Amino acid sequence: MGKKLTKRSEDYSKWYNELVVRADLAENSGVRGSMVIKPYGYAIWEKMQAQLDKMFKETGHENAYFPLFIPKSYLSREAAHVEGFAKECAVVTHYRLKNAEDGSGIIVDPDAKLEEELIVRPTSETIIWDTYKKWIQSYRDLPVLVNQWANVVRWEMRTRLFLRTSEFLWQEGHTAHATREEAIEEAELMMNIYAEFAESFMGVPVIKGLKTESERFAGALETYCIEALMQDGKALQAGTSHFLGQNFAKAFDVKFANKEGQQEYVWATSWGVSTRLMGALVMTHSDDNGLVLPPKLAPIQVVIVPIYKGEEQLQAISEKVEGVVTELRSRGISVKFDNRDTHKPGWKFNEYELKGVPVRLGIGMRDMENNTYEVARRDTLEKQTIAADQVVDHVEALLEAIQENIYRKALAYREDHITEVNTFEEFKDVLENKGGFIAAHWDGTPETEEQIKELTKATIRCIPLNNNAEEGACVLTGKPSKQRVLFAKAY
Amino acid sequence: MGKKLTKRSEDYSKWYNELVVRADLAENSGVRGSMVIKPYGYAIWEKMQAQLDKMFKETGHENAYFPLFIPKSYLSREAAHVEGFAKECAVVTHYRLKNAEDGSGIIVDPDAKLEEELIVRPTSETIIWDTYKKWIQSYRDLPVLVNQWANVVRWEMRTRLFLRTSEFLWQEGHTAHATREEAIEEAELMMNIYAEFAESFMGVPVIKGLKTESERFAGALETYCIEALMQDGKALQAGTSHFLGQNFAKAFDVKFANKEGQQEYVWATSWGVSTRLMGALVMTHSDDNGLVLPPKLAPIQVVIVPIYKGEEQLQAISEKVEGVVTELRSRGISVKFDNRDTHKPGWKFNEYELKGVPVRLGIGMRDMENNTYEVARRDTLEKQTIAADQVVDHVEALLEAIQENIYRKALAYREDHITEVNTFEEFKDVLENKGGFIAAHWDGTPETEEQIKELTKATIRCIPLNNNAEEGACVLTGKPSKQRVLFAKAY
Repeated sequence: MGKKLTKRSEDYSKWYNELVVRADLAENSGVRGSMVIKPYGYAIWEKMQAQLDKMFKETGHENAYFPLFIPKSYLSREAAHVEGFAKECAVVTHYRLKNAEDGSGIIVDPDAKLEEELIVRPTSETIIWDTYKKWIQSYRDLPVLVNQWANVVRWEMRTRLFLRTSEFLWQEGHTAHATREEAIEEAELMMNIYAEFAESFMGVPVIKGLKTESERFAGALETYCIEALMQDGKALQAGTSHFLGQNFAKAFDVKFANKEGQQEYVWATSWGVSTRLMGALVMTHSDDNGLVLPPKLAPIQVVIVPIYKGEEQLQAISEKVEGVVTELRSRGISVKFDNRDTHKPGWKFNEYELKGVPVRLGIGMRDMENNTYEVARRDTLEKQTIAADQVVDHVEALLEAIQENIYRKALAYREDHITEVNTFEEFKDVLENKGGFIAAHWDGTPETEEQIKELTKATIRCIPLNNNAEEGACVLTGKPSKQRVLFAKAY
Repeated sequence: MGKKLTKRSEDYSKWYNELVVRADLAENSGVRGSMVIKPYGYAIWEKMQAQLDKMFKETGHENAYFPLFIPKSYLSREAAHVEGFAKECAVVTHYRLKNAEDGSGIIVDPDAKLEEELIVRPTSETIIWDTYKKWIQSYRDLPVLVNQWANVVRWEMRTRLFLRTSEFLWQEGHTAHATREEAIEEAELMMNIYAEFAESFMGVPVIKGLKTESERFAGALETYCIEALMQDGKALQAGTSHFLGQNFAKAFDVKFANKEGQQEYVWATSWGVSTRLMGALVMTHSDDNGLVLPPKLAPIQVVIVPIYKGEEQLQAISEKVEGVVTELRSRGISVKFDNRDTHKPGWKFNEYELKGVPVRLGIGMRDMENNTYEVARRDTLEKQTIAADQVVDHVEALLEAIQENIYRKALAYREDHITEVNTFEEFKDVLENKGGFIAAHWDGTPETEEQIKELTKATIRCIPLNNNAEEGACVLTGKPSKQRVLFAKAY
């Protein structure tokens, strides 16, 4: 196993980086800013994908696939959009390599220069709306409810595994509607689906809200978001859903004939979550011993570790365990019986703790005699001795209890870290000494928002949807304000 | 519905292109050589993915994800490999756009030139073996059995939807082994899994074989393949599995300590199938009326079309149909009840024929009176009247029969189109007038292979694994040969 993880209290950032690598989730690659998602990490992502995909399909969405490359001229059609993405674009300029004439190796063939450069998609609104122009003529063609699972590239100077990588995996939904109201409803629906997924599957409590103008998606009229809080008191934007108005329809001239036969521009939304969710998952629940995974997303929900000497004891334990494995699997629970003789039980205990397996069953000779199992839960590290004939029921209930418990724990932390402040001194004090979300009045101007960011590094994470109207004075300028917004330092 | 499809007998190639677009499988995009996979086409691909993924996991493979970009220097490390891919590489040279100073628009920022160019992966051996170097130290770390679902780019000058596109979707398996024998076993296993998938799920009969040296994957010691035959007598390579020897281990210096503590280079395989399979699926079974889909991969297996006048009749039919829908779904059969009032039954019949829905149930007033359904099967276009209380059993059996029938039909065609020839005159005659595979003696030299290709456009598709030893004379040179190989014109 090697040495222990850095403690969260010592260096949270270092703890995260170590944990992601040592728990076999991901690692840096030889390509600047691009990660390798390792099989264990990818297995969690696959479970996330499967659940999200199910929720998208249940709400009428279909998957499709659009090109990786976007002609430069497409990206340029929507002014705010290109402004937002131009600084982080990977650009394909050539389509061939060749041997250098001087024998110095392989070079880019200068004769194979593209007439128009291609951008590796940072997001697909432009290429998709160029396509929708062909798909949409009449109100009968609407709504178009399409999702894409894909890789995207945004050139980042400072990268961190899962949280910020130049290439990442995500899903992007792109929908087209006949009316403004229907598009807004869709954008809200998808925000709600993301929130439901985060809370019920990842066990991550989130705040639903709206972004301020300066934090909006490039090209959106409104950006809905879900914001989570990490254990170091920093916020993490976990998903966004955009009401795009008619911006892309106008940029790509996508009109439909309404029931009265008149031509109208189409209304749009887009929405996405990415492998960034993996970072949120790790940082919300894990501890100094390693990952803590929600049972609903754990690739292995139960591991059984035999404690034995010699082949004969292992044989006896294996026979005993077989029925439990079969019974757990028949209830849809994933089980691993780790009978490897290359590692000692203590090593295995540490390994599965590091990897966040929710429930561990230990069984040794004394358990064999007493007809019991030692049941250890990963979230609280508590152990219990359970009679063999009750162990399957117990484990099934325990998995549900763990799912619930880690959510409750994260929720309590989050609730404890939303602090109302009324002066800028308090603001700075809470930010520095407590962290978390700060609920403060803001005068509604981008200038004040920018100034607070410069002074404190805190940004407005969102204007919560469930906000109460409340008269107040802006925490920086003292100008009148009608509601509190949530500030935080953020990932 | 518009006009009829071009007939296969008139222009097979045109028929294919029209069918892919009109059946809503895919279309060309604004990006040269890149396609848009539409929701209906993508739903078929998802079914293929799900089944293949299951088969990979059942044989011990795990999924992971590696970077889209490959540094130019990595690609260059294995000489044959770079030689094979250099001519079709999309190259990223810059990482930023900016506004032109002369106001002429968005340009590539010359200050944002990469120090080393990045290649958009045409395949991932190099980036993956650079990673495996970190993963593999000891025999205990072997085998590594990893698969990746990804997009890849190979710059193609002449593209066709699904069959040859610059960007395509695929899976690529990359495995590492302690011994040569184990790696060869793996390569053969995956070829067999591909064959099983093609035959049992796609209903596409395939010939398993080995590629000749000149047709091998760039960097492989041996390429196993499955070859299918299309209705126009041209062959289509449907999947390949490569034994890579120690080529990539040597290029990336990946060694392991064996049980005796000695350092050895690791043995490798890679294997892949792509969205090209969609082309094979379309071309193997479809007819002049449209797609014919194997029930196991059809997004909609059964469609129910009501034939009615007025709301009252529709209501009565809807109530009648409900039980059948529920019962079919409970048996895992996907059903669509098309009660749209915007289209007439005749239009719907054509539409579902075009889209290859395997079974169509029609129900009108006379059927209501007689308590029957009209059951139409897509493969033979036959119709039967079936009593309502037998319709669910009938449909379930019919779906199996269709799956079996289209395979048998394709197999009979394929068997009928393997022709033994013994002279070059015969060779040319069969190639021109009959098509299909030509079983002929070949002297084993790349020169003869090349000459036959130049003279006839036919290539050696494979050396079948089940070949009989047979003394003979090369069809072109008359030199001695020990077995027949399969020639064909190919996609």
